[in-house]
Amino acid sequence: MKVAVLGVGLIGGSIGMATTEHVPGAEVVGFGRSPERLARALEVGAIHRAAGSLEEALEATGVCFCCAPVGALPQQVGAALAAAPADCVVTDVGSVKQGLVERFADERFVGGHPIAGAETAGVEHARGDLLQGAVWYLTPSAASSGILYERLHRLVVALGARPVAIEAESHDRLLATVSHLPHVMANVLVSQAAGRGELPRVGPSFRDATRVAGANSAIWTDIYIANREAIADEADAAAERLRRASDILRAGDAEAITAWNDAAAADRCRLLEADSAQGAVHELRLTVPNRPGIVAQVALALGKAGVNIVDLALAPAADMRTGAMTLWIAGEEQAGRARGLIGDLGFPVAQP
Amino acid sequence: MKVAVLGVGLIGGSIGMATTEHVPGAEVVGFGRSPERLARALEVGAIHRAAGSLEEALEATGVCFCCAPVGALPQQVGAALAAAPADCVVTDVGSVKQGLVERFADERFVGGHPIAGAETAGVEHARGDLLQGAVWYLTPSAASSGILYERLHRLVVALGARPVAIEAESHDRLLATVSHLPHVMANVLVSQAAGRGELPRVGPSFRDATRVAGANSAIWTDIYIANREAIADEADAAAERLRRASDILRAGDAEAITAWNDAAAADRCRLLEADSAQGAVHELRLTVPNRPGIVAQVALALGKAGVNIVDLALAPAADMRTGAMTLWIAGEEQAGRARGLIGDLGFPVAQP
Repeated sequence: MKVAVLGVGLIGGSIGMATTEHVPGAEVVGFGRSPERLARALEVGAIHRAAGSLEEALEATGVCFCCAPVGALPQQVGAALAAAPADCVVTDVGSVKQGLVERFADERFVGGHPIAGAETAGVEHARGDLLQGAVWYLTPSAASSGILYERLHRLVVALGARPVAIEAESHDRLLATVSHLPHVMANVLVSQAAGRGELPRVGPSFRDATRVAGANSAIWTDIYIANREAIADEADAAAERLRRASDILRAGDAEAITAWNDAAAADRCRLLEADSAQGAVHELRLTVPNRPGIVAQVALALGKAGVNIVDLALAPAADMRTGAMTLWIAGEEQAGRARGLIGDLGFPVAQP
Repeated sequence: MKVAVLGVGLIGGSIGMATTEHVPGAEVVGFGRSPERLARALEVGAIHRAAGSLEEALEATGVCFCCAPVGALPQQVGAALAAAPADCVVTDVGSVKQGLVERFADERFVGGHPIAGAETAGVEHARGDLLQGAVWYLTPSAASSGILYERLHRLVVALGARPVAIEAESHDRLLATVSHLPHVMANVLVSQAAGRGELPRVGPSFRDATRVAGANSAIWTDIYIANREAIADEADAAAERLRRASDILRAGDAEAITAWNDAAAADRCRLLEADSAQGAVHELRLTVPNRPGIVAQVALALGKAGVNIVDLALAPAADMRTGAMTLWIAGEEQAGRARGLIGDLGFPVAQP
């Protein structure tokens, strides 16, 4: 089967590598606007060959992945559908789906969105295992061909990912909640803190909460625009929740405040558990000496022993070297082993 | 000089250790409600001796640190002032100041708040260098004695911390912005995500943003109550900012959205820079193989070379092992070295 990848960056390149690795006999053909990028993609083994035109890339192709940034997808998907054979499934990897799905009511089009790291960009960061185990949302429409959908689904499974079918609108609301809203909230937090008379010192909880503030506009402006209604709804709902929190605080009722806060603790654990699917998530807190290399030592000891860290928080002391650590470990057995390993290193783990 | 520590936990114990270490001839006397805890404090060298009563602890004492949790401080500070000699400075380490300062218009009282890791509790996590380089807010009132304030200030410097005088009200508003509000926002985010029909999968940005959600109510309910007006004001202001963000999004003007997002990026960098005071903060993004131990390897390589990581974000792939990393390094020279060291490990660093 011939597979076309349009736009060979981090995701497109990783799809190409995984296809080469896992699908015997597949030929991966890349196409993009930048000849340099195509040359690099060839170099790193992300594609078997670079096409000279969109038509060449799509000729006799069975599956076409459109991997442009969100803002360029309508144009790219449109062009791909115009050039693709009648029995080619065309999909994309954008993080917003509804607009595309509504626009292309073509039986060959199935929206897609693999949830894979996008902290880095560029084909030089691509790797064959980026999509391993990743949830890969597929958003077929009423127009999508069942046969073509099945072909795409099978390929996604072959690449090592986990296809999850979802309606485009639900997908966009879901992403608005768990990805786009946290970005908006982070922006609000930093602007509010920086808007004070003089710049305050910020602590580790502030750094954690605002890590995605002002994420790359070249990518995010398009995401914000493409999903603006859902994100605005989520932001309004969050504003309403903030006002309710403010009411609870002003009332000064300790029981109500504790109930509100404990509910959030329970909610976070449920979310982490649903995410890891490896059993209840245990929180381990430890104090470590105030010098570089200690986090490394702890992470390394657990990594070597095969203990998975679901989440990790650093609370560096004022001099910015590591101080206190919180680890989230899934599963009772793994958490127990982690406790033992950390104890062996000589760092006391706080009792929960 | 005799130094009394009331409540010998993480902070009290660390103050005791630092005093023993850095103040020749000082005698550190501990007192608290739990004999077991006092015995542990003696064992780990946090205090020289345990007093049998509050009166014994305060007899002929020059400086008294009240280290109870925020909710118990009014009672503890009141009792300490009642028992303390006329020339003893009484201070506390609570993260909310205005209520205490208003309540105790005594010339011997100076409010205090060292910004030091509170991720772990208990004297077994205490260490002499916890306060090293830490900002230590001091909130004297108009009633505070200049001589006693100076004594406390000198002791804080001797312990290796950096005293910063600030009005109690300003302190509480500042903490509301950079510490308490992020906690409220994290609670809102998890509750909103968990309030959906079915539990969504959450990504790394969500985990970062919600790390402090539902922080220990035994500590936080008191903080929320003690600083409720300032936190409620901040929550209302954040709600208003969210509504404005929602308006900007709904309008769908790419330029306005980019300007809003870029402003947040600039704000975060200004905050991190003010915090680290080691020059402009540089962001390094890298992709690393999807296996445990890699973060450790990177952190270790930088730690060994003396490169300080101001902040660190992990974006684990779907299988929860480490995938993509973002590092924030202060100073052009250090960032350059970090790039080189990471390159030597064979991990490509994305161009900014």
